[in-house]
Amino acid sequence: MSNIRLGILGATGVVGSEMMNIIQEKDIKFKSIKLLASEKSAGQVVRYNNEDIIIEEVTKKSFNDIDILLVAVSSSISKKFTPIAVEKGVTVIDNSSAYRLDDNVPLVVPEVNSEDIDNHSGIISNPNCSTIIAVTALNKLNEYAEIERMIVSTYQAVSGAGAKGLEELKDQVNKLENNEEIKSEAFQYQIAYNLIPHIGPFNEVGYSEEEMKLQNEGRKIFHKPNLKVNCTCVRVPVYRSHSESITIETKKDLTVEKAREILSKSPGVKLVDDPSNSKYPMPLDTSNQDLIFVGRVRKDISSEDNKSLTLWCCGDQIRKGAATNAVQILEKVIEKKAYRN
Amino acid sequence: MSNIRLGILGATGVVGSEMMNIIQEKDIKFKSIKLLASEKSAGQVVRYNNEDIIIEEVTKKSFNDIDILLVAVSSSISKKFTPIAVEKGVTVIDNSSAYRLDDNVPLVVPEVNSEDIDNHSGIISNPNCSTIIAVTALNKLNEYAEIERMIVSTYQAVSGAGAKGLEELKDQVNKLENNEEIKSEAFQYQIAYNLIPHIGPFNEVGYSEEEMKLQNEGRKIFHKPNLKVNCTCVRVPVYRSHSESITIETKKDLTVEKAREILSKSPGVKLVDDPSNSKYPMPLDTSNQDLIFVGRVRKDISSEDNKSLTLWCCGDQIRKGAATNAVQILEKVIEKKAYRN
Repeated sequence: MSNIRLGILGATGVVGSEMMNIIQEKDIKFKSIKLLASEKSAGQVVRYNNEDIIIEEVTKKSFNDIDILLVAVSSSISKKFTPIAVEKGVTVIDNSSAYRLDDNVPLVVPEVNSEDIDNHSGIISNPNCSTIIAVTALNKLNEYAEIERMIVSTYQAVSGAGAKGLEELKDQVNKLENNEEIKSEAFQYQIAYNLIPHIGPFNEVGYSEEEMKLQNEGRKIFHKPNLKVNCTCVRVPVYRSHSESITIETKKDLTVEKAREILSKSPGVKLVDDPSNSKYPMPLDTSNQDLIFVGRVRKDISSEDNKSLTLWCCGDQIRKGAATNAVQILEKVIEKKAYRN
Repeated sequence: MSNIRLGILGATGVVGSEMMNIIQEKDIKFKSIKLLASEKSAGQVVRYNNEDIIIEEVTKKSFNDIDILLVAVSSSISKKFTPIAVEKGVTVIDNSSAYRLDDNVPLVVPEVNSEDIDNHSGIISNPNCSTIIAVTALNKLNEYAEIERMIVSTYQAVSGAGAKGLEELKDQVNKLENNEEIKSEAFQYQIAYNLIPHIGPFNEVGYSEEEMKLQNEGRKIFHKPNLKVNCTCVRVPVYRSHSESITIETKKDLTVEKAREILSKSPGVKLVDDPSNSKYPMPLDTSNQDLIFVGRVRKDISSEDNKSLTLWCCGDQIRKGAATNAVQILEKVIEKKAYRN
């Protein structure tokens, strides 16, 4: 057992409760675990390693007996409590977007840039789900051939919008079945049997916040400030696991054979690429596990040289795209003794 | 009333019955209408312009009293009957892929290349649904700026696989609701709440037949034998209307403003592009009508010049993507008197 006192802020949400599952699966032991949430959830009892833990309401005084805090709340709530925790000497691993692009906050996917953890000043950010999935899939291809440009179209599951997204799809499917009127609250429009190319607010040149995250976070994680990324993000009526259709252009030659060889050995990746036997990644297969499945790897036939490939990948955006990645950062922080107690 | 005797082969299928709807909506009058189908469907009665028409079994002798035949059957059945009809002097408008790439068969989207009809030798082919949607959306942008390269990811509705695709999604949703075992026959795997990046067989370099159609048919319709097209085709759990995320690279400069101006006047296109007010194309909105909705038009931020744009379009693949386009060809054939009776 480590002597670390862990806290989880947002323990009752989709990502927070998945973080607890993963810590138990990985059998990481702590001196103590404190579960924090909003007033609304305070008092709920959570089963954890055969113990009952009562969720406490988060206040400014919640952080005195915590060494490392996992934050799985919205950006605005993170901005309210993360600075207080850091002030108290807590090392924060934040799943929100609040600090991801701050120069003195490392943004980490452990398979890609765990060394960035060494330079933290109290906060380590967990990247956006679509970004984690793409950079995990592409990391070793980038190391080998230097990715210069990415053109990405996403197919994002409703649980990316949390429990309310999941419930909205389920509820709409049932209501449509019974010819009842449906409501759209988690999403802009009906998502059942529909597609919505709108995830987060749009900027002045017409890109959504989600689309810009892949560029901005991708550049930071890969340490490539000039990486060119063009992304289209689309919500699809799938419960869990995001999928991405990606074309990359590389500085150096990269054949399909070499790419497959690299992907078959990439950490965090499972190569599922035998289309003639109907083997390729699908969101149903990637849910509730931690690997990013990559397949449909092929030469970009719209490019004449050997510097452009197209592929298809799927990953569980609640696990590797959020909770698992945060817990992997937590493990690295413990391993590196990069916490501040 | 024209003096034309029309035949429809495959009148009971999803596309064939939609052809009949569209002919009635457009109030195109014929001297006679003969409805043909397989032995299985023969004898069924179809209501058409307040008349009952009995479906006849198609045989080699079915074509004596037909001037123009709409074919809405599989490629293999078209190959069996189309040559016989042509031999009898019938002008065939074929929705199957059987003859699309034949040098002496025009492949026509009326908004794009209706002049190609003038050179037919008995058969005019109707392009693949995803191709029709893309080339209708892009035609006037191509005329203005000359498209050189397209990178496309599709989101294709289950009805692209016909009535059995529609029923399979509906049936799977119901069975999953009741915890019953599901069957996958129309598609390779469960399509409910899933995505399948597999439409048609794969070629030796890993592209599916559907993906290659966009390149090969796009080149022919645009008369651009060197057009570069890289496509990823994905089946999604949407009942009707295909969607496409498209990045184009053009020979000449094309600003977003100019593209919007062109699209707002493009025949067959409706510009739906006001993302800050949540206006963009969605498959629910494009179903059961004939326009291709185009939106999310923006500069490709992975390109440094003004020669690359990204956009999102949706269209009803049963109507404009198949039946409507075939009926528009029929109208052009009549207008041009390009039939052979």
